Amino acid sequence: MNHMVGKSSVQLENQVYILNSASIVGKKEGEGPLGELFDMVGENDLFGCNTWEEAESNLQRDAVYMALGKAGKKAEDIRFLFAGDLLGQSIATSFGIASYQIPLLGVYGACSTCGESLTLGAMTVAAGYADYVACVTSSHYASAEKEFRFPLEYGNQRPLSASWTVTGSGAFILGKERENSPQGQPPRAAITGMTVGRIVDYGLKDSMNMGACMAPAAADTLAQHFRDFGVTPGEYDRIITGDLGSVGQTVLLDLLREQGYDIAEQHMDCGMEIFDAQTQDTHAGGSGCGCSAVTLSAYILKQLEEHHWKKVLFMPTGALLSKTSFNEGKSVPGIAHALVLVAL
Amino acid sequence: MNHMVGKSSVQLENQVYILNSASIVGKKEGEGPLGELFDMVGENDLFGCNTWEEAESNLQRDAVYMALGKAGKKAEDIRFLFAGDLLGQSIATSFGIASYQIPLLGVYGACSTCGESLTLGAMTVAAGYADYVACVTSSHYASAEKEFRFPLEYGNQRPLSASWTVTGSGAFILGKERENSPQGQPPRAAITGMTVGRIVDYGLKDSMNMGACMAPAAADTLAQHFRDFGVTPGEYDRIITGDLGSVGQTVLLDLLREQGYDIAEQHMDCGMEIFDAQTQDTHAGGSGCGCSAVTLSAYILKQLEEHHWKKVLFMPTGALLSKTSFNEGKSVPGIAHALVLVAL
Repeated sequence: MNHMVGKSSVQLENQVYILNSASIVGKKEGEGPLGELFDMVGENDLFGCNTWEEAESNLQRDAVYMALGKAGKKAEDIRFLFAGDLLGQSIATSFGIASYQIPLLGVYGACSTCGESLTLGAMTVAAGYADYVACVTSSHYASAEKEFRFPLEYGNQRPLSASWTVTGSGAFILGKERENSPQGQPPRAAITGMTVGRIVDYGLKDSMNMGACMAPAAADTLAQHFRDFGVTPGEYDRIITGDLGSVGQTVLLDLLREQGYDIAEQHMDCGMEIFDAQTQDTHAGGSGCGCSAVTLSAYILKQLEEHHWKKVLFMPTGALLSKTSFNEGKSVPGIAHALVLVAL
Repeated sequence: MNHMVGKSSVQLENQVYILNSASIVGKKEGEGPLGELFDMVGENDLFGCNTWEEAESNLQRDAVYMALGKAGKKAEDIRFLFAGDLLGQSIATSFGIASYQIPLLGVYGACSTCGESLTLGAMTVAAGYADYVACVTSSHYASAEKEFRFPLEYGNQRPLSASWTVTGSGAFILGKERENSPQGQPPRAAITGMTVGRIVDYGLKDSMNMGACMAPAAADTLAQHFRDFGVTPGEYDRIITGDLGSVGQTVLLDLLREQGYDIAEQHMDCGMEIFDAQTQDTHAGGSGCGCSAVTLSAYILKQLEEHHWKKVLFMPTGALLSKTSFNEGKSVPGIAHALVLVAL
């Protein structure tokens, strides 16, 4: 029952199935290159609510609702819920998923939270602690700008290195057994292993250039993953980061080349896929823990389902800052957690 | 390998050992009834730092350092670190423990975070994903008041139902095997099972009466625990909540009586033990995710070590609010996670 691999990784003895998943996004994301693939697109980003925070809570609630429905499960079937978001004290989660009454394990890893929730969820299922768990994360452009930078009403300007927080939530139902949905749909993919990241801080302090802040952590986790599993980048059809954006991508490729790894051919970034930076004015790309979650659900799992890809490394990336730490002159450390996903 | 018990609980097939632990607190906590028991007491609550947040980060760093030292372990021996705090985006953790370079899984459950970190840590070790993990949580009176209510400089008044956030951090080293410290000290206790709580919201909105906000969640998790394991309160020498304080204790005992459980004889609350409310002007009691953590390390584990108690249920309690949710008129939902601790 020893699943430990290398210094920071786990190889699951029995793979864990992503039985089904769902994504819900805002208007702008719906107008982007992946727009057609999301399960639901809001008409405006308040989603009928009075506040941005409430809107984000509703995103989590609706994503879980849709994922449960697609998997043919009820809330009572789910033993534990792993959930988190970017807001202080994770209030999108607290007010979003309370009504399901599923035992909750709240997680926080900034925009890497989707990776963390799937890591812990899959480890929990594989160990026999649960037959089914759910994992959900979200972000919202307006609530995130208010939380980390300035309320939208201030109309502040954004440099080209800035990313655009994705309004969206992705939810995933993980299960121990390979089982089809009520509609006869097989599981979307399986999780076979993971590498847990550590905090990496190069001392960058620019909250308008999160890609550069997170890239060193992404490089660290990737290099560790290659060493732990004894593989090279060619092992994967795609190596997918969460939200490095165009600036962060350049830094990541450079840092990995210094360590002898060239991932230029395999690398893909959810933040660069979800928006068309040229026409959507999103600068470096999308970000937020909704970004990797909805891209995984809508796009990555679809590619695995359709066997365009056989094996990918999915690695959401997070920038560990708060408004308080930023205002106190602290740096923006990064973290990244990687999961091995395989087609069935 | 099926450890599932009832609806929300886990019984570990192999118990997990709390190899050692450490606690560090502020001046006021050092002057309280448990003052003599803490490993370190600060001379003032800035601990030589420039900001309250930095001080809290240092608490986590120092608690982990001491716990590692007492257990005879190095940071490299620890496979995963489960950590969190009350500050937005968990910055006490991010800036406190980065230097250890231990793969990090950030957790958030408000003041229940100590329980969540030990729950996930023990599950991880018991499943064979790690030989050793560390769990650390913290809170700080001044950073918490600033984060949730008003900066101390405002000199606002506090009603008698308010609790006093504990300045302190507790760190725990969990291990798979029963092994003595370099000084020949056996593990302090073992974790044998856990009940994961769900969010319970009675609609209370008073952030100056967190005990009442959290008590329904505490009652829910406790009743679930009794049902899941098929035990009665008499199973435990103590049933220990995190920080309900005197107001929350009354509500908890009443709510459980309605469900047919009387825990008056066994109940103890870390928040009521750590301060002398009469002489220390702390009103309802201590709170914060440092409160249960330092009380566990300094007092509860000592009682188990010395066999005054054989088996206790340790259940940190959390109030899931933020300044934003409070200002937007939201309620204060609660959550509580329970762990079964046994003497060796």
